Amino acid sequence: MERNDALARDVRARLTGSGIPMFNLVSSPGSGKTLLLERTLEDLGDEIRMAVITGDVQTQNDADRIARCTPHLVQAVVTGGACHLDAKQVTAALEALELSGIDLIFVENVGNLVCPASWDLGETAKIVLFSVTEGEDKPLKYPKMFQQARYVVLNKTDLLPYVPFDVVRAKACALEANPELGFFMTSALTGEGMEEWYDFLRSQVGRDVGVTEGAVG
Amino acid sequence: MERNDALARDVRARLTGSGIPMFNLVSSPGSGKTLLLERTLEDLGDEIRMAVITGDVQTQNDADRIARCTPHLVQAVVTGGACHLDAKQVTAALEALELSGIDLIFVENVGNLVCPASWDLGETAKIVLFSVTEGEDKPLKYPKMFQQARYVVLNKTDLLPYVPFDVVRAKACALEANPELGFFMTSALTGEGMEEWYDFLRSQVGRDVGVTEGAVG
Repeated sequence: MERNDALARDVRARLTGSGIPMFNLVSSPGSGKTLLLERTLEDLGDEIRMAVITGDVQTQNDADRIARCTPHLVQAVVTGGACHLDAKQVTAALEALELSGIDLIFVENVGNLVCPASWDLGETAKIVLFSVTEGEDKPLKYPKMFQQARYVVLNKTDLLPYVPFDVVRAKACALEANPELGFFMTSALTGEGMEEWYDFLRSQVGRDVGVTEGAVG
Repeated sequence: MERNDALARDVRARLTGSGIPMFNLVSSPGSGKTLLLERTLEDLGDEIRMAVITGDVQTQNDADRIARCTPHLVQAVVTGGACHLDAKQVTAALEALELSGIDLIFVENVGNLVCPASWDLGETAKIVLFSVTEGEDKPLKYPKMFQQARYVVLNKTDLLPYVPFDVVRAKACALEANPELGFFMTSALTGEGMEEWYDFLRSQVGRDVGVTEGAVG
């Protein structure tokens, strides 16, 4: 773990020096990370040059899906059973990317609300996806993940009419775990709320990289 | 891990001797384990005496919800950060239960598709909950969990009209991981499909405990 943190510091120093923000997307399996990335790459790919490092336990399914949107900028890491990515894997993935041609990097971590919370990858910020089909108390049940994150994307909002999910209570639970969290509300399926997400990403490119202030509601 | 497996064998021997099946419910966070248990306890509680051992990373929220349905038969285990229950925790929980007054035990494991797959708890069978809001390829991305399981509960079927989820493909992915799997399709919210689940549970009570044959479609 100490070795991981040292590598993560190297990654962070290198990306900061290059002016490239890196966002580490974490969530339960099935919260919609891959679809959010697919849509983001399609809608914003002409404007922002984005690379994706995907972590999967066994398959390259997510990497294959994303590669259809951005063929040259995907690094797939198969963790071979491990429940998280680590800084060594990210370091190797970065070696394979041509950073001078990249404005922003996403890491799609393994779907897991426990393990990835403990592993610094050198990211600018962790962003938790949280689907409205999950329980509102997820942030209290998995507090470390929400404490380590800077933003929450409440995703699958198109399903709100059909599920017993209380957005106000969910946000309150998240803020109880971490009062500093910023929120986005998106449906990567219908596109609802994606423009605010894109504005946030635009605001992160070509600026001094670091943990960012508010800008989200 | 060896010590865990030895304890799990003790648990299995003890429960087999008492004729009590124990089902280890595993899934992503938010797939509906707690609601499935709440509804099962409400609907079947007069007929089958069920105990529940709940595992949560930090809170007792799930145990508190379930305790409203079956006040005397809940053992809450807070793993304190760990991503799975282990056989030692289950052994301690069983000590606190009066087995002579119990027909069937559920373990509600930590919401996680990676870690719990590796930990034998002495259960009769692992049952994976798999919500239709997740991707159909979850069994290929988390094959070990589906290989270790005997049954899959495809849950939240009430949302099928609103999500791009292909039931046939999902079952095919699950069977690719493990051709022996049996399936249930349920909505714990609306009650759809719950009768088949209850018939299965009825069939498991008061018989020789062991991995069971088919009986499900």
